[in-house]
Amino acid sequence: MKLPKSFFHCYPVYKSDSDYFSTDSGAPDLKEVEKLLGYKFKDKALLEKAFTHASVADVAAGGCESYERLEYVGDAVLNMLLARALYLWYPDLSPGWLTQLRAANVDTEKLARVAVKHRLYTYLRHHRGGKIDDQIEEFRKEMEKHPLHSMGLIKPPKVLADIVESLIGAISMDCGFRLKKLWPIVKMLLEPIISPETMKLRPKAELQELCQKKRWKMRYHGGLEDGEINVFVEDHLVGKASYSRSMKKEVAINHAAKDALMHLKTTTFVSSET
Amino acid sequence: MKLPKSFFHCYPVYKSDSDYFSTDSGAPDLKEVEKLLGYKFKDKALLEKAFTHASVADVAAGGCESYERLEYVGDAVLNMLLARALYLWYPDLSPGWLTQLRAANVDTEKLARVAVKHRLYTYLRHHRGGKIDDQIEEFRKEMEKHPLHSMGLIKPPKVLADIVESLIGAISMDCGFRLKKLWPIVKMLLEPIISPETMKLRPKAELQELCQKKRWKMRYHGGLEDGEINVFVEDHLVGKASYSRSMKKEVAINHAAKDALMHLKTTTFVSSET
Repeated sequence: MKLPKSFFHCYPVYKSDSDYFSTDSGAPDLKEVEKLLGYKFKDKALLEKAFTHASVADVAAGGCESYERLEYVGDAVLNMLLARALYLWYPDLSPGWLTQLRAANVDTEKLARVAVKHRLYTYLRHHRGGKIDDQIEEFRKEMEKHPLHSMGLIKPPKVLADIVESLIGAISMDCGFRLKKLWPIVKMLLEPIISPETMKLRPKAELQELCQKKRWKMRYHGGLEDGEINVFVEDHLVGKASYSRSMKKEVAINHAAKDALMHLKTTTFVSSET
Repeated sequence: MKLPKSFFHCYPVYKSDSDYFSTDSGAPDLKEVEKLLGYKFKDKALLEKAFTHASVADVAAGGCESYERLEYVGDAVLNMLLARALYLWYPDLSPGWLTQLRAANVDTEKLARVAVKHRLYTYLRHHRGGKIDDQIEEFRKEMEKHPLHSMGLIKPPKVLADIVESLIGAISMDCGFRLKKLWPIVKMLLEPIISPETMKLRPKAELQELCQKKRWKMRYHGGLEDGEINVFVEDHLVGKASYSRSMKKEVAINHAAKDALMHLKTTTFVSSET
């Protein structure tokens, strides 16, 4: 079968024009990133690539120099490193819970927080003053309301998680995937790593678990048209959240579930039985 | 939040009773596996664990000695190794296609074929003569009808893919995740590795792509109750497949789509335009 043209679609090469940087002081110094990581790149082009957004590239050059291919590698490395660490740290944990614990440690919000905490976003090469900067700024403000993890109540910009993954991909390629080099860097970036003791369920999952345990019928109602999501438990309206067009439905559902949990836990609905 | 008890659910320890083995000749010799791999385990218990099904374990012993936790590690290692190899082999491939190509190389059927090709299933420690043996035997027969890959037309037993992943997990833990040890073994097991040239789409995806290109309306109709899945293109019935209770719906849909593609390609429906 002939594969479509997009199979060999190339991402364009980065043009070193200061207009493209996200900081006003010109090109950010990637040596600062090496210092943060405690790792010196043999191939500096890999480090540059890790921070190059597809939007600032030059199609005419015909290369594939945005961070997206490195992000694909970094995602796989991150999953492997966490799988190994959790396997060794928790010898009694079932595979199902190992998988959930890993997911919590590498999800978009966790990685976006890594990018903010270590100011990695300041090295991103992209068109400044655009949508990306607004999204990052909004996320930084929202983060302050949830110091550790919002558990699905805020929507992190994908680009922040992307550059953490692409950076890990770049280090992996540069050091030949050597565990002894990779793991201390990744561990430092991810600290504090979520453990079985600190792992929390998202409100949607917590509500579902509670209702299953109590054998209560639960349903969500509403959506984009209504501007509101309602939660019904045993046909009583127990929680609601407003729903805007810019919000992901999953985020709105978590808000509504959180509202429902708060009401259920503070009323006789639950307290008489727990 | 308090986590449920299942969080620390343990898998029981393997009992070395010859009744548990799948071959009539008693315990299969795992040295043969080492010979096949060209790798000697420092920790032989890891190799044993890789072939130990949860069904033959002893809860009273309180250990976690089935292959399931190693399978979780092996799955992550496999994805990482393929991500790296495909990144290096295809410098012009977009991340989307890299992801699809990797998925094709590590899917359940591909790995189940690896287990059959190298007779790895003969080393599986499980209750013999049960459902697993029947499933493996049925898959071996079905494989003969599709020499390379059925592309979704047959349903492989998960246990076959599981032991390939658990074996890779065991080698990873034993060799300290060293790329130079791991990659030659994994590459040998997966040969022939599916390339952009040899990759095929599943009939369902191929039909969808064709209909999108031609701007034809396409729909599936039927299911478990009717015992048949029908495919309609521009409201004409163009393909069908019988659907049994033991079959996955996805498998039946691929059969129906394959039938539809055959009819569309051999009638004026397509030929006048392609």
